[in-house]
Amino acid sequence: MTPLIVTLDTPGITDVPGFEVAGVPCDIREKQDLKRLDLALLFSLRPCTAAGTFTKNAVKAPPVLLCQKHLAEGGPFHGIIANSGNANACTGAEGLADAQATAQRAAASLNLKPTSFFVCSTGRIGQPMPMPRLLKGLERAVTEKGRTPEHGNKGASAILTSDTRAKTVTVSFTYDGKKHFVAGMAKGAGMIQPNMATMLAFLATDFSVPRSFLQKTLSEAVAGTFNCITVDGDMSTNDTVLILANGHSGVSVGDKSPRELRVLFAEAVWKACEALADKIVSDGEKITKVVEVKVVGAASSEDAEKVARAIGNSLLVKSSWFGEDPNWGRLADAAGYAGAKLIEAKLDISYNDTPAMIAGKPQPELKPQWKEIVRARRFTVTLNLHLGKATFRLLATDLTDGYVNYNKSE
Amino acid sequence: MTPLIVTLDTPGITDVPGFEVAGVPCDIREKQDLKRLDLALLFSLRPCTAAGTFTKNAVKAPPVLLCQKHLAEGGPFHGIIANSGNANACTGAEGLADAQATAQRAAASLNLKPTSFFVCSTGRIGQPMPMPRLLKGLERAVTEKGRTPEHGNKGASAILTSDTRAKTVTVSFTYDGKKHFVAGMAKGAGMIQPNMATMLAFLATDFSVPRSFLQKTLSEAVAGTFNCITVDGDMSTNDTVLILANGHSGVSVGDKSPRELRVLFAEAVWKACEALADKIVSDGEKITKVVEVKVVGAASSEDAEKVARAIGNSLLVKSSWFGEDPNWGRLADAAGYAGAKLIEAKLDISYNDTPAMIAGKPQPELKPQWKEIVRARRFTVTLNLHLGKATFRLLATDLTDGYVNYNKSE
Repeated sequence: MTPLIVTLDTPGITDVPGFEVAGVPCDIREKQDLKRLDLALLFSLRPCTAAGTFTKNAVKAPPVLLCQKHLAEGGPFHGIIANSGNANACTGAEGLADAQATAQRAAASLNLKPTSFFVCSTGRIGQPMPMPRLLKGLERAVTEKGRTPEHGNKGASAILTSDTRAKTVTVSFTYDGKKHFVAGMAKGAGMIQPNMATMLAFLATDFSVPRSFLQKTLSEAVAGTFNCITVDGDMSTNDTVLILANGHSGVSVGDKSPRELRVLFAEAVWKACEALADKIVSDGEKITKVVEVKVVGAASSEDAEKVARAIGNSLLVKSSWFGEDPNWGRLADAAGYAGAKLIEAKLDISYNDTPAMIAGKPQPELKPQWKEIVRARRFTVTLNLHLGKATFRLLATDLTDGYVNYNKSE
Repeated sequence: MTPLIVTLDTPGITDVPGFEVAGVPCDIREKQDLKRLDLALLFSLRPCTAAGTFTKNAVKAPPVLLCQKHLAEGGPFHGIIANSGNANACTGAEGLADAQATAQRAAASLNLKPTSFFVCSTGRIGQPMPMPRLLKGLERAVTEKGRTPEHGNKGASAILTSDTRAKTVTVSFTYDGKKHFVAGMAKGAGMIQPNMATMLAFLATDFSVPRSFLQKTLSEAVAGTFNCITVDGDMSTNDTVLILANGHSGVSVGDKSPRELRVLFAEAVWKACEALADKIVSDGEKITKVVEVKVVGAASSEDAEKVARAIGNSLLVKSSWFGEDPNWGRLADAAGYAGAKLIEAKLDISYNDTPAMIAGKPQPELKPQWKEIVRARRFTVTLNLHLGKATFRLLATDLTDGYVNYNKSE
């Protein structure tokens, strides 16, 4: 099979033929700062199909509700407007009207229907959106949008909050003599306005993809990538992943395509999501460690996930990672209270490939090796429950004093 | 009805007629420290009925397994041996043999059956118990035990780990002309050996109480007190609450007792548990705030509990409490992802009695009042879901940089 080429830190969306991007400053934060980019526009003149996944939080921000409504109406779609600095969350009917007005302004400026635009926001909760600033910025974005790498980079920057760097990826592969693209940009779980920890990711492809096939492909990729990361266990009101497929290449991919093409496309979407998810974790709020928590041999996938999440979200476990302390007792403790089937006498725990516990028995003579392993910025802890064949992999971070101090107040 | 008198910071168990206590040093931590008390013996010459509640962690320490076994055998019971400094957890068959040997030694010294003793441990996970030290200390405890306040105080001190103070309570009331007692001692969720966060509590009463009535009374009290607190959301392998009833007063309380007496006794046990649970939270690891999270108007008790726990265990919420930041957006966010039925447009949030959100609408003009409220060491946040009548109350703490640094390594 033709290889996928995954390139990180690209301009992202503008790598996909037919997509234009803008990133402009409009001082959404109302800090008299007209340098910081805070509004992104992603645009395809050619009509797109789209798919999306959204936060499961019962408190959904109005832009999320609007995206879900537009997606349900089925398109065609032409773009995404995304701002940082204000989440437009807990803002009720007024917030929804503001999100709608944003889509309407883009539509009017570009002579398209309002339902062809998605609107996404990230930043502070419970503050009215400064609409005059946003709409002024949107006009500018419509004028300035373009296809150069600089346009792509600016767009990727404009959605950041407390992220320390832009997060982009471009996946390409050749099929039937033609090069195709799936590219994306994301922002991570940080909070320069300490009311939010939102994850936004936008993807684009030049394939023509029927809506249901696109949704299935995206949902599967999101389940295995974005939904398998944790920084602080707090799910935002605004989490959104969207993909637009503009058909620029003239090639379709769907249920009836050759298996090789379907697999390549699904793999490309997966790889793009995986790369962006990894970037989000690696740039988590004041983290110092990225830890892959692998649970294998569980009686069910649900059990494997419960154990991985109990470990990845345990304050004691995360604090010990920060301290570079190979404290396997806390891993066993968290696994034990996860609510999964677990028998201590069968449990194996290891750091990378070095066992800390085998069949419930500690291996204290290997402590020097664990200590060495946990000193790295990135390592793996594996728990084998020996109760079945189900597995789960969670990418987690440590918890630092820096995180607590950063988030303790506005 | 005759009033209950709740007195804090008493000698605890020795306030109950017929109970003897010892607290001795035996250097369980193996630090050449023969000053620190680390072994407690609670003893009643008169045979007792007993009841207990234990950790739901799938990884249970051997002493927990032994307590459960002895409890199932039905008694009669004569006492509790509890050490700090070593949790005897993740120690397998050898750990169980060590716990059994401890009960056997107490039984041999006091000419009683091994099954009449409970054994409890708290401290580091995964280390073999230094049995020669422990047994030597136990001999000394058997010799030194007594009924003075000093004996009670020493016992209460011997079970502490990173607690900054002993935790005791005595509840008394007069019934039918006779004074009765329910008293207790506890240790909190701290970790001077940073592998554990164990909660132990021991209660005693001079009533004669049939086993099943005692268990029912204790289980109800524990569900509403110890099980409604959180410091870091980590459930230990060793959590244990035990109550002994020695019948010293010659008065029985059970299913067939007059209603007044049943209610008084249940209330006394509840008050004793409540006081000890409160002391555990207030002395949580490096905390600066105790926050009562009240959820009312939920569709079900399960929903109320989910919302309260999501809030009380959210890193973002806890960090904001530390920063004295009335960040109600984080409360709404955590409530939203709790997995409970919740409609944003119905949600009220308040700090003490000052609203922050009414029916989904923020009340920003009251911010100066919220700011004042969260400056106190103790305050209440109330969420009214307006979806039913169910309620839940959780006593939670903030999360501090001190906690992270304290627990980051051994």
